Amino acid sequence: MTTLYSYQELYKFAYNIFLAIGCDPMDAEQATKTLLSADLRGVDSHGIARLIGYVRLWESKRVNPKPEIKVVHETPSTAVIDGDSGLGLVVGPQAMKLAMQKAENVGTGWVAVKNSNHYGIAGYHSMMALEKDMIGFSFTNASPLVAPTYGKERMLGTNPISVAIPTNKETPFIADMATTTAANGKLEILQRKNQEAPLGWVQDQDGNQTTDPEAVKSGGALLPLGGSPENAGHKGYILGSIVDILSGVLSGANYGPWVPPFVSFLPVSDNPVGEGLGHFFGAMRVDAFRPKEDFLNHMDNWIKRFRETNPIDSKNQVKIPGDPEREFEKERSVNGIPLLQPVVDSLKVLSEKLDVELPEAK
Amino acid sequence: MTTLYSYQELYKFAYNIFLAIGCDPMDAEQATKTLLSADLRGVDSHGIARLIGYVRLWESKRVNPKPEIKVVHETPSTAVIDGDSGLGLVVGPQAMKLAMQKAENVGTGWVAVKNSNHYGIAGYHSMMALEKDMIGFSFTNASPLVAPTYGKERMLGTNPISVAIPTNKETPFIADMATTTAANGKLEILQRKNQEAPLGWVQDQDGNQTTDPEAVKSGGALLPLGGSPENAGHKGYILGSIVDILSGVLSGANYGPWVPPFVSFLPVSDNPVGEGLGHFFGAMRVDAFRPKEDFLNHMDNWIKRFRETNPIDSKNQVKIPGDPEREFEKERSVNGIPLLQPVVDSLKVLSEKLDVELPEAK
Repeated sequence: MTTLYSYQELYKFAYNIFLAIGCDPMDAEQATKTLLSADLRGVDSHGIARLIGYVRLWESKRVNPKPEIKVVHETPSTAVIDGDSGLGLVVGPQAMKLAMQKAENVGTGWVAVKNSNHYGIAGYHSMMALEKDMIGFSFTNASPLVAPTYGKERMLGTNPISVAIPTNKETPFIADMATTTAANGKLEILQRKNQEAPLGWVQDQDGNQTTDPEAVKSGGALLPLGGSPENAGHKGYILGSIVDILSGVLSGANYGPWVPPFVSFLPVSDNPVGEGLGHFFGAMRVDAFRPKEDFLNHMDNWIKRFRETNPIDSKNQVKIPGDPEREFEKERSVNGIPLLQPVVDSLKVLSEKLDVELPEAK
Repeated sequence: MTTLYSYQELYKFAYNIFLAIGCDPMDAEQATKTLLSADLRGVDSHGIARLIGYVRLWESKRVNPKPEIKVVHETPSTAVIDGDSGLGLVVGPQAMKLAMQKAENVGTGWVAVKNSNHYGIAGYHSMMALEKDMIGFSFTNASPLVAPTYGKERMLGTNPISVAIPTNKETPFIADMATTTAANGKLEILQRKNQEAPLGWVQDQDGNQTTDPEAVKSGGALLPLGGSPENAGHKGYILGSIVDILSGVLSGANYGPWVPPFVSFLPVSDNPVGEGLGHFFGAMRVDAFRPKEDFLNHMDNWIKRFRETNPIDSKNQVKIPGDPEREFEKERSVNGIPLLQPVVDSLKVLSEKLDVELPEAK
């Protein structure tokens, strides 16, 4: 049910689409890189499958293809960036670069962003810090889909946390996780396969836990990490809230239920509490704390020791955050990226609408 | 089964115990304040119940009552502090103050601590930032009790995350949570009541989920937030790991399975990878991002809106992080702090051992 495409073919297509909606070549390049890093790393929900969504936001004038991205407030270690309704795929990397510059100067840098749009996978941005031997942080708020503990209203997005930590010889530590039990993409897979969701993933419109993977569509909500109150779902609610406040309240973006939805057919709030959606980025130079080699070698030791954890089942070793995505990247950059038929169909729509040549299957 | 004591009586007792083990008066005062903030806030496992544990660490020469706390590395926004084996109850607040000074100067401050001991509740330290209209962060690693996903070995502590966020008129947002489904203290309550634990809290020595609240004592482990792999227990493992790396690897403290146990009867590793245990603190001036009043007023709005979330049950409204602890503090500062008989007994032991007058019950 999937067709294989090379990264290069998909790159060319997405790049030409971004040019066609009016992006400058440099921005189109950055947007394409950020977007396709999801497909390479196996996060299919956040990659080229969303390209049509970004185009629809542009059609409804919610994405500005030629943003004037500006620093509107700063101190030696902080800044706020106004994304001017640009693609988060472009605004995000620019903000992360500024955080890294500040870390270069004073040890750490922290940049909050308002007036942005969906920024792809959180991990793309945090990983930018690795090549400079910095720890990278990336957070964003997102369309409200999650009910806080004891609530039946959707108040938070899946608000991810990503932290990337450099190493010497071992693979880096790359955390990139939604603060819900399951990301929405995992539910979509169950829907397609007509399978039930485990308890703890979703609740129905009355707030009852359910195994119906369609429950979110019929007025229900995703559950915060932990699930039920008994299993500490309030902790997921707390984590999602921290991400929302850093990304939204600190930057001057919208927050909580006011965050504009990604899908262009849902209306934006009439009474926004801020501008667009928000992100929060951080960079910490490891040598702002201890000599670089010491840090990197101890990280290697951390990773080796955790890989050697006595396993429950010797055929299933303990993993290091980032391992599954690394496997995907290794495999897909050689063998290609598999796209489901609905995704291929969406590329056809884009190809006709914007007069861009379709990618050739492998 | 409990006896009530006033905060003042317990304060006098703990203060005199800290003096008796050789602390300077200022340090004894700080240690007492930090310790008892747990009892006031209802975190009974981390308060005066632990006083005897700290004394035992002092007896086994693992706590230095007169530490020379030193900054060993710094940049404008960062520092590393060597706690000189002092009480974390004293080292922690000193490190947090330094983080706040740095935030005063360059917008944010981040301080990693090595060579420390247990620091009480994480929230005491993060909340210090509130009076300066800063966002406070507090993390620590701790005795290994938690198995990573797919592992049956205890590799991580309950490694808490605390974030305190200031408001204008509303109550502040105070997150203070272990990165496990349940803190060890909650299991102890079930053990005393002879009740079963919900699935998702613990596993036995073979890595099977169990409802036996004694399982951790017989070679099992606490489960990371989320619990089973199906319910995203790997996300709790990721969070606990981030806390461990920031607290231990960045500072030069021990990390993972090498973190020294709190109980003095368990041996410290023969091959430590660092010094003592580690903490990580942060402070961010909100006006390093946007005008203070704007931030505080939007936080008020955030909190009001989340309190108004449509509830599943109208008698059980959505809570704001910090609400339960605030209720305890209001009630206990008036009516007193209830101590269980084993805790009262431990105070008697201390009273005799160190010749300090017992507190009088209310």
